[in-house]
Amino acid sequence: MSRNKECQCNQERRSLLVGAGKIAAGAALVSAGGFTMPQLAKAKAAAQQWPWPYVKLDPAKTAELAYEEWYRVFCGAAVISSVFSQLREKVGEPYTSFPVDAFVFLEGGQVGWGTVCGSNAGANMVANLIAGPRIAGAKEGHLMSEDALQWYSETALPVFVPKKPKVAGEIVKTTSQSPLCHVSVGKWMKASGKPIGSAERKDRCARVAASVAYNLVTMLNDWKDGKYVAKSTHAPVRDFGITGQFNCLECHGNGVPTPPLAAKK
Amino acid sequence: MSRNKECQCNQERRSLLVGAGKIAAGAALVSAGGFTMPQLAKAKAAAQQWPWPYVKLDPAKTAELAYEEWYRVFCGAAVISSVFSQLREKVGEPYTSFPVDAFVFLEGGQVGWGTVCGSNAGANMVANLIAGPRIAGAKEGHLMSEDALQWYSETALPVFVPKKPKVAGEIVKTTSQSPLCHVSVGKWMKASGKPIGSAERKDRCARVAASVAYNLVTMLNDWKDGKYVAKSTHAPVRDFGITGQFNCLECHGNGVPTPPLAAKK
Repeated sequence: MSRNKECQCNQERRSLLVGAGKIAAGAALVSAGGFTMPQLAKAKAAAQQWPWPYVKLDPAKTAELAYEEWYRVFCGAAVISSVFSQLREKVGEPYTSFPVDAFVFLEGGQVGWGTVCGSNAGANMVANLIAGPRIAGAKEGHLMSEDALQWYSETALPVFVPKKPKVAGEIVKTTSQSPLCHVSVGKWMKASGKPIGSAERKDRCARVAASVAYNLVTMLNDWKDGKYVAKSTHAPVRDFGITGQFNCLECHGNGVPTPPLAAKK
Repeated sequence: MSRNKECQCNQERRSLLVGAGKIAAGAALVSAGGFTMPQLAKAKAAAQQWPWPYVKLDPAKTAELAYEEWYRVFCGAAVISSVFSQLREKVGEPYTSFPVDAFVFLEGGQVGWGTVCGSNAGANMVANLIAGPRIAGAKEGHLMSEDALQWYSETALPVFVPKKPKVAGEIVKTTSQSPLCHVSVGKWMKASGKPIGSAERKDRCARVAASVAYNLVTMLNDWKDGKYVAKSTHAPVRDFGITGQFNCLECHGNGVPTPPLAAKK
């Protein structure tokens, strides 16, 4: 597939894994706003070259950090913070400069609108910031994002149990069959009988963020070791002729529309 | 509302507009990875203090840039690039270091899964990176994101017509009634009869990104002038007891579930 072709979500691009060598981004650096010192230029360039330097992290420790951070910055930023706070200590730039807290808006599926679960959006950001975008020649960020969304949709969540839970007792697990906040939270609320403002729902979402962070770091560690293999089987544009989830019937019932398809040659 | 309380999407927080003074983020800077020079420290700190320096931009020029960038980095990164590429030239840091191209993954509602339209995700990122997150004491990033999502959902898109369109002729306009890629693209495909791989669909999405960038910069310019007033009326947690869109019936039909609600005192 051409690097600058829009994603068609086909299987071809899964067939090879790109090595983890340094990949310069296509865009050249532009005006440095008055800063011209060599070290500063180096730090700037670092953020736009991929992959970002990565050292393997402990998934359980990362999950604990995400759980705690949820109560400060909520789902999306908690996942980002759980990984980047460790890499700031272990690596430094470009993690040090990255404005993690700005991503609080990922909460509630983007400012409460119930779209993509912030934990997924945060995980996708981390995977693509570290491994790099497909237009820079890397595939793994894109593939890990697909895997993260499918894993989230098919897993009874939350799987992670914090060492010091803020809400005692069992938390009901539900399988969302969707990467969307509204669907994930809605199914959990139905199964648990707990309202959105309850301590249990908040702790459930904190544990989901922790679970997503655990899964993300597991993939990144495998990638670092050169043994990451993409698992996702969902290719919506190829299979359905439109971007979307894998379970059309859940929203459309029996009346699934047929999208316009390209003429067969 | 407490700054560290999860968003409850109520109306209270719309009542006052915070001034555009410098707000230090809650998190202290951590290890700088070996870089200790004062100017470098200044650049790092800049990315984690809000608001980021902003100068007013021309909405039409920004939209043209987003349109062109769509063909390189696709919807989400195109919106971010259209704003940040200009601010790199006019301001410098922290825009210079920001890794715009990593956000290609926002395409197709996050790697093709049809969740939030990448143009919306990109616009929300820009608004919150510039104005800052609500946990740092700013409200406008959150409010502009709500406005962006509602505007996208209720507007017949695309509204922007590029000076040099890559596809000649009229592009059908559709109102998505949703911020989701799948719904937005699906309604347009149905109205136009064009498949997802068509040149017309691609140009429609490029023009949607341009339209979103135009609307975003219009809000940011008003905010810079101290005259931004939030317009969004959608408060899902308050009104429906769950994160979500405003039009429950479109997916649920007549069987809209009643979410568990907090006991009335």
